[in-house]
Amino acid sequence: MKALEEKIMKEGSVSPGGILKVDSFLNHQLDVAFLNIIGEEFKRLFADKKITKILTIEASGIAIASIVAQHFDVPVLFAKKTESKNLDKETYEADVYSYTKGKTYKIKVSKRFLSEDDHILAIDDFLARGEAALGLASLIEQSGATLEGVGIVIEKGFQKGGDKLREAGINLKSLSIIDSLEDCEIKFREE
Amino acid sequence: MKALEEKIMKEGSVSPGGILKVDSFLNHQLDVAFLNIIGEEFKRLFADKKITKILTIEASGIAIASIVAQHFDVPVLFAKKTESKNLDKETYEADVYSYTKGKTYKIKVSKRFLSEDDHILAIDDFLARGEAALGLASLIEQSGATLEGVGIVIEKGFQKGGDKLREAGINLKSLSIIDSLEDCEIKFREE
Repeated sequence: MKALEEKIMKEGSVSPGGILKVDSFLNHQLDVAFLNIIGEEFKRLFADKKITKILTIEASGIAIASIVAQHFDVPVLFAKKTESKNLDKETYEADVYSYTKGKTYKIKVSKRFLSEDDHILAIDDFLARGEAALGLASLIEQSGATLEGVGIVIEKGFQKGGDKLREAGINLKSLSIIDSLEDCEIKFREE
Repeated sequence: MKALEEKIMKEGSVSPGGILKVDSFLNHQLDVAFLNIIGEEFKRLFADKKITKILTIEASGIAIASIVAQHFDVPVLFAKKTESKNLDKETYEADVYSYTKGKTYKIKVSKRFLSEDDHILAIDDFLARGEAALGLASLIEQSGATLEGVGIVIEKGFQKGGDKLREAGINLKSLSIIDSLEDCEIKFREE
């Protein structure tokens, strides 16, 4: 997605260690007008799918999923990472290993909000090793719902999560794929 | 706000211990269409203010803030609760005591995204003791920005945070105020 690549080049930065910062519009400050352009693009990419709900993970997926959901006219469900007194006892759960934090955490959704009648589009800001997306796919599978697709804003192609999801037969659409952040230079995959 | 009170009565539930669950539309599953009605109402209530940015706290404030921001045509900034490699070193910070969790946590925003030119509307889902809202007010004060108002979806009037904020001279607008959850019954304050 050309507009996204331009936005990343204009506003993003790369820290040594290969960390891409896009905190001016995607995961700290949120450029809501731009997120609507992203929402339109996801709607176009998944136009042939009957979507009943958008699924994401707290915290940085929530804004994107909420704006995207407007373009599909469906509710959002976000998986919780943290313990919450407010969460039902009856949940679908999956373990997600975080390479950046070096530990496994649990993601949970209430069983009340996912059913076999649901057709789910999973949305997240980043795809790196694919652990979070596979966790979401597991929640969906447990519920008997159908995973219609996974929509990602920025795929770090060099971390191979995208390959893993595609090999698993998941309908993955990434709006941008970065093949390298070496020498603090952003290299996009050519379409 | 009548439509909100009706939504809470229809979809909400109260657990013993006075915990109000609104996870079908506000803080787990998100009824994005309804959040837009909330957004319109905040726009009406703060129509006389020049707002340049919406500030909230992760995680459950993010969806509401993002949808509300569309009605003001401004970006959102969400304060981070968790450590993140992606966050700038230069931050405004405040301590927030959580009565439900019995501990103090830090909220942080990058200094790059709050300045003395900003006119901020702080948005959150719940107001209980007011600790989180006062934390946001502190971040704004540190930056030299102007706090134009605080918009809350559900104020738990009996927990007195609202009184505290109003006494501090903060322009607080709560879309619903609950005066009691005793005996698992929801009692709204009359307007």
